[in-house]
Amino acid sequence: MIELDFVLVIGLLSLAVAAFLARGVWKQDEGTERMREVAGFIREGAKGFMKRQYATIAGLTIVFAVALFVLFTFFEPGRAFTSAICFVVGAAFSALAGIVSMLIAVNTNSRTASSAATGISAALRTAFRGGASAGIIIVALALLGIALIYMAFGQDPQETPFIIVGYAFGASFVALFAQLGGGIYTKAADVGADLVGKIEANIPEDDPRNPAVIADLVGDNVGDCAGRGADIFESTAAENIGAMILGVAIFSALGTNGVLFPLVVSALGLLASIAGIFAVNMKEDGSPMAAMNLGFWVTSGISVVLLYIATMVMLGSTWLFAAGTVGIVTAIAFVYITEHYTEHKFRPVMRIVEGSRSGPATNFLSGFALALESTGPTVIVVSAALLASFYFGVQSDVPNGGLFGTAMATMGMLMTAAYILAMDMYGPITDNAAGIAQFAGAKGESRRRLDKLDSVGNTTKALTKGYAIGSASLAAFLLFSAYMTEVAKLTGKPFDVVNIAQVHVFVGAAMGALLVFLFTSRAVRGVSKTAEYIIAEVRRQFADKAIMSGKKKPDYAKCVDITTQGALRNMVLPGLLVLMIPVVIGLLLKAEAVAALLIVGTIVGILFATFLNNAGGAWDNAKKYIEEGFEGGKGSDAHKAAVVGDTIGDPFKDTAGPSIHVLIKLLATITLVLAPLFI
Amino acid sequence: MIELDFVLVIGLLSLAVAAFLARGVWKQDEGTERMREVAGFIREGAKGFMKRQYATIAGLTIVFAVALFVLFTFFEPGRAFTSAICFVVGAAFSALAGIVSMLIAVNTNSRTASSAATGISAALRTAFRGGASAGIIIVALALLGIALIYMAFGQDPQETPFIIVGYAFGASFVALFAQLGGGIYTKAADVGADLVGKIEANIPEDDPRNPAVIADLVGDNVGDCAGRGADIFESTAAENIGAMILGVAIFSALGTNGVLFPLVVSALGLLASIAGIFAVNMKEDGSPMAAMNLGFWVTSGISVVLLYIATMVMLGSTWLFAAGTVGIVTAIAFVYITEHYTEHKFRPVMRIVEGSRSGPATNFLSGFALALESTGPTVIVVSAALLASFYFGVQSDVPNGGLFGTAMATMGMLMTAAYILAMDMYGPITDNAAGIAQFAGAKGESRRRLDKLDSVGNTTKALTKGYAIGSASLAAFLLFSAYMTEVAKLTGKPFDVVNIAQVHVFVGAAMGALLVFLFTSRAVRGVSKTAEYIIAEVRRQFADKAIMSGKKKPDYAKCVDITTQGALRNMVLPGLLVLMIPVVIGLLLKAEAVAALLIVGTIVGILFATFLNNAGGAWDNAKKYIEEGFEGGKGSDAHKAAVVGDTIGDPFKDTAGPSIHVLIKLLATITLVLAPLFI
Repeated sequence: MIELDFVLVIGLLSLAVAAFLARGVWKQDEGTERMREVAGFIREGAKGFMKRQYATIAGLTIVFAVALFVLFTFFEPGRAFTSAICFVVGAAFSALAGIVSMLIAVNTNSRTASSAATGISAALRTAFRGGASAGIIIVALALLGIALIYMAFGQDPQETPFIIVGYAFGASFVALFAQLGGGIYTKAADVGADLVGKIEANIPEDDPRNPAVIADLVGDNVGDCAGRGADIFESTAAENIGAMILGVAIFSALGTNGVLFPLVVSALGLLASIAGIFAVNMKEDGSPMAAMNLGFWVTSGISVVLLYIATMVMLGSTWLFAAGTVGIVTAIAFVYITEHYTEHKFRPVMRIVEGSRSGPATNFLSGFALALESTGPTVIVVSAALLASFYFGVQSDVPNGGLFGTAMATMGMLMTAAYILAMDMYGPITDNAAGIAQFAGAKGESRRRLDKLDSVGNTTKALTKGYAIGSASLAAFLLFSAYMTEVAKLTGKPFDVVNIAQVHVFVGAAMGALLVFLFTSRAVRGVSKTAEYIIAEVRRQFADKAIMSGKKKPDYAKCVDITTQGALRNMVLPGLLVLMIPVVIGLLLKAEAVAALLIVGTIVGILFATFLNNAGGAWDNAKKYIEEGFEGGKGSDAHKAAVVGDTIGDPFKDTAGPSIHVLIKLLATITLVLAPLFI
Repeated sequence: MIELDFVLVIGLLSLAVAAFLARGVWKQDEGTERMREVAGFIREGAKGFMKRQYATIAGLTIVFAVALFVLFTFFEPGRAFTSAICFVVGAAFSALAGIVSMLIAVNTNSRTASSAATGISAALRTAFRGGASAGIIIVALALLGIALIYMAFGQDPQETPFIIVGYAFGASFVALFAQLGGGIYTKAADVGADLVGKIEANIPEDDPRNPAVIADLVGDNVGDCAGRGADIFESTAAENIGAMILGVAIFSALGTNGVLFPLVVSALGLLASIAGIFAVNMKEDGSPMAAMNLGFWVTSGISVVLLYIATMVMLGSTWLFAAGTVGIVTAIAFVYITEHYTEHKFRPVMRIVEGSRSGPATNFLSGFALALESTGPTVIVVSAALLASFYFGVQSDVPNGGLFGTAMATMGMLMTAAYILAMDMYGPITDNAAGIAQFAGAKGESRRRLDKLDSVGNTTKALTKGYAIGSASLAAFLLFSAYMTEVAKLTGKPFDVVNIAQVHVFVGAAMGALLVFLFTSRAVRGVSKTAEYIIAEVRRQFADKAIMSGKKKPDYAKCVDITTQGALRNMVLPGLLVLMIPVVIGLLLKAEAVAALLIVGTIVGILFATFLNNAGGAWDNAKKYIEEGFEGGKGSDAHKAAVVGDTIGDPFKDTAGPSIHVLIKLLATITLVLAPLFI
């Protein structure tokens, strides 16, 4: 089919562009010998962790693939083989995307550090283009995977989308463990390094005497880069397949076009993102944020134009185009909401700064209150977007067009995914670059440039979290509509009511909310526990006077190893919890209760993730603001209070929050795949 | 009708018993002159606050009564007058109950302090009987109020329950402001007094030099006593009327008996509680907790027997009796769950103690993780109770008996309400007594006895919060079933589906969850803001050397006044938020979306309140444990960390958490009353 060919061509073309961008980065100088050395440590640490992490994940994947096969043999033998295969393919592609993006990140960091000697624009270019190449690869791989299995499994527009849901489940499965394991790793190392290094021993951040510093730098790559990469890979996979299923539901009106439209739009989004990436060019005295914002506007603008063309050609409905633009506008709105709640230019962060004056408790309470408040605009924007896109969909006169309208909004929002990922990866890469420079003793102008880029990285990271939660929220409605469509297809009876006024459905709903609470609890505890091991190890090494005086090198590898083990050990239980609860509820209370679990779990997940992300971001920036010299600056009581808030916020914003994005989509894909068991 | 006569007789009899108990307390000596003096300060402060608080609430009540009248004149003129009147009567009875319980508390505190000179059993007896008299009065007044307006408004078993829902709304309305205002008052004063007194100036708790100490002691009475009193008053009112409405739904099977049964069971519960209260007798070398536990078991045991008799006589169904016992068992289960998560005998609190070793951030994270985890057993017990009581109800062969089964469970749980309230009030009374003794410079054996009683008070307070959230959870299902019954009656069409798979209902559900987040945010910020005013004032007074050296009396009245103003100012906005959101959603998105708001708001509310209560309780007890000399004891770094956790937990457990109990029921009653507007 021409649409599939188009998607394949764009996907391959994007991979070529990514290779071109990566080659440009590779050509840069790797910096001084000391820089190369520390970059080498980071590379080894990251590779070592990912190798063991993906070995664990591979083991779990095989167990689940077998379990899927066996379960389906009993309940729906016709799908046993395909489900298991699609699951494994999704998992494998997701793992590939994660590994490639990590490899790019660990090779871009030192090159960014060294190009800062040339100028700030050169450093930005290196970091951003490295991140962009990873971002493009992730989205392109997700898309190519779907196109390929769609071709492999029959190309029947009314059947194949249901058959390949296992691909999305495999992607979510890997994403959960990648994000959770990486998130625990990065924050446990960070908390461990800071609590003993900065607070107890009073040495600066990224000081080479701190044995946990390499583990901390490794964390940026395995948590932020590989984790978020797996998250967006999963979004692309799940939301495309979910939208294709809704396309089946309106097959009578739009035919094959409705089914393949999501893939085409995603491919066009890749093109728009690539254009945006090439538009990022900063003058030497310009603002890095402004340069990246320009690229985002270019991507958004081109997306609107391409979306219009595609909608008119394939679906022939201006109303559906309007529904799609709702998604693009929502993406922009989320970026601004996040900025308002996490930037010190605005009132909320300043309230935390004021709260820091009376100590850590009031610093905490201010942040807690404002982060809870930040869920307000988030939910209102999502609600408005859903109601508007649903309304536009209904106006389109397509039967069941309302639901397809919400799907259109999700597709619109995801068009900018590759660009957003580029901005996101830029964050940890510059963070690493600054760390490498500090570690290698770089001074002067080049160091100052990296700090400036790094502080912008904090903002872009926060923004992309806002975007991720926004897209997860919009997609939620699409995904559980897909679930209901699938159940209806399986039972041959209409299934469009989830009546929470029934006791067993109410219990399902309560379990959905509970799941989010328990998962957050376990994710946070995973960080605490792993951090405890690191704290003990760093204290042990600091007891050696030779290390503190700088005469003897600390044992970095030992800390990396402890963090790796702790993160892997603590990621399994919360992951299994999320996988088991929906299955148990589905088997005991059946399909309608599971739908309630999915819906209410999603609502609570969105609120919780928003709360956690914004709380963490705001505390972080309040601390940074004080460190700029306000309220007594570094070392003051206000600063000490702000450090406590920042430490609390670390697992909120970089472990639990992002893992909940993944959790929401995993709930959707696991119920989609296991639907035959619940009827 | 014989049932109503029975309820009136028991109600009046209970008031007589309460008067007898109060008289016994009043006969006790008021203690030394210094004790009388400080008790006088507390009494004046509490009266002053409650006078202004209830003046504000009265103003709001009148505005809402008029608004109700006007709205109903447009939508349902037949009910305009009755709704407004019932609302005002409910509000007035609730206010009366709150004021009486506060008056009893402020007269029992100094008498408890002085009777500690005789012995620990005498002090326990004074405190517990004072609390018991307030507890009995609250439940009896709630019940008498319903019986009286039921008689006044026609006694038509199929109509009157719908007419008098305004009574429950009035009670919830007052309870929200009473709990929120009192909760802000008590914790702002506590945080303010501690942060400047204990941490900055390094003087002990309840030291007479601290200008905020009287405000802090007043807070126990207006927050814990009056607030929780209004909460349980509301529970009794809302759940009785809700159960009566479900009685109407099964009128064909059980007739008038089904409608009046809830009132009879509540009256019997009062009898059981009175028996339990008289069973509390502690030996001089015994354990105060064991004495109160014995009373609880006596109450529970007698409740089961009386419930059996009532069910067999009026409903003639063993299955419905079984459903009722589910509630009694659930009450016991909740007490144990709360104990597990907040007592230092168990693992969770010890984990916080361990976390305190690495500082405030890890202390916080440990508590955060365990409090989130504590929602697990809570939700599972509630789910099991709902499923079991529903199942028993279905077995009873009463049509729609499943829902009535869940109502039976709620009635069973609420039978012990008066006893639980007695235990609850005991907490703030002994807390005050210990404060008065410290303030008056009491030393030796008598002081030690009060401290022992006070530490038990912390446990009983935590347990009653567990009970309150448990009863709110069970009642939730009853109350929204009542809402749906009412909508069905109004429209003349069956209304038994709340389909969250529709976009507008989904948005309603999301708004329900959001409401809890925003309310919590505002409640916490209310405490922070008010505390800031107090901190500034205490610092200002401490600047006067004469105060710090004890030569000059600090200006207590000024701090009381500032706290009063701050609490009143900050209670209005969150209160209005809770009242407006359901109305706006109801008018825009209609009855089904409101039902979803109510259901999901309740689920999230239960989880959040459990999280907040248990987090606060656990941090508090971790701190107390360290103060007993472990981990370096008072003044150690671990202790400093634990103090931060305790301060964060204060507004969690005594402001936001308990206010959410009220919020949940308010959502139910406001939707019940305004149902005619949403169709």
